[in-house]
Amino acid sequence: MKARFKKILAPSLAVVMLAASIGALAQQAPKPENLIKWRQSAFQVAAWNTGRIKASVDGQYNKDEVQRAANAIAAIANSGLAGLFAPGTEQGKGWHDTSAKPEAFKDPKKFGELNAAFGNEATALASVAAGGDLAAIKAQFGKLQRTCKSCHDDFKAKE
Amino acid sequence: MKARFKKILAPSLAVVMLAASIGALAQQAPKPENLIKWRQSAFQVAAWNTGRIKASVDGQYNKDEVQRAANAIAAIANSGLAGLFAPGTEQGKGWHDTSAKPEAFKDPKKFGELNAAFGNEATALASVAAGGDLAAIKAQFGKLQRTCKSCHDDFKAKE
Repeated sequence: MKARFKKILAPSLAVVMLAASIGALAQQAPKPENLIKWRQSAFQVAAWNTGRIKASVDGQYNKDEVQRAANAIAAIANSGLAGLFAPGTEQGKGWHDTSAKPEAFKDPKKFGELNAAFGNEATALASVAAGGDLAAIKAQFGKLQRTCKSCHDDFKAKE
Repeated sequence: MKARFKKILAPSLAVVMLAASIGALAQQAPKPENLIKWRQSAFQVAAWNTGRIKASVDGQYNKDEVQRAANAIAAIANSGLAGLFAPGTEQGKGWHDTSAKPEAFKDPKKFGELNAAFGNEATALASVAAGGDLAAIKAQFGKLQRTCKSCHDDFKAKE
């Protein structure tokens, strides 16, 4: 009786474990529309913080404001954005239809290089923002913005 | 002749400077729909990174993945989110109709306290994530999630 119970139980356990594995996989693979929504969100947060820095360095400079904004951009730039451009997200809708060009998915090496440049210049901006030297901040902010533009030129469709 | 020229020029310069000030003010005061869009984006980026941490600590732990995600949440939590809940944004549409409750705008002291708790627990998570102690990360991740819930309970409408 005990042996028979085990026999019945064993496949059931296997099924449960398989279901759990599939569940874990599902958790690790978000839906394409979520990936697109998250990348659109990440770039919007970058845009918000870019605007805050521009307003502050062109107007009444506020060190704390610029530093918080620069930290946010740096953390997003270094968060692993490439993971949001996974296969299956070449087309589709997050908050709106993706504005990523097909080229963004065809040249992962170049995409990775531009993403790394974004991360490096954003990290450098967060570092000079902590120092509070306005001229140095403006110069580094210019370098950061050029990384945005170079990536948009190659990989983002005009809206 | 020179004096007369100065007389004419002086008011013109004043007008130009006034226009420039208004321009600067306009730049510093984004539209309510943009503020709502940015806060919806910021919380989406937090949700993306919360999901990454959960998948990693519940599944195959990846120190680098968790650290990048924790850094992103910390930088967003400390970015000055309260500024995105400015007067005039009590109602309105960003990506979608705001889900902020009216209470979020009526008790700025409590809002500030909950925002500070979010920032503090997120900073602590980024710190333990850098250490790589999985048990400590799980414990601190739980504390961070409780700050999300307590703020949502008070200030976010059910969707």
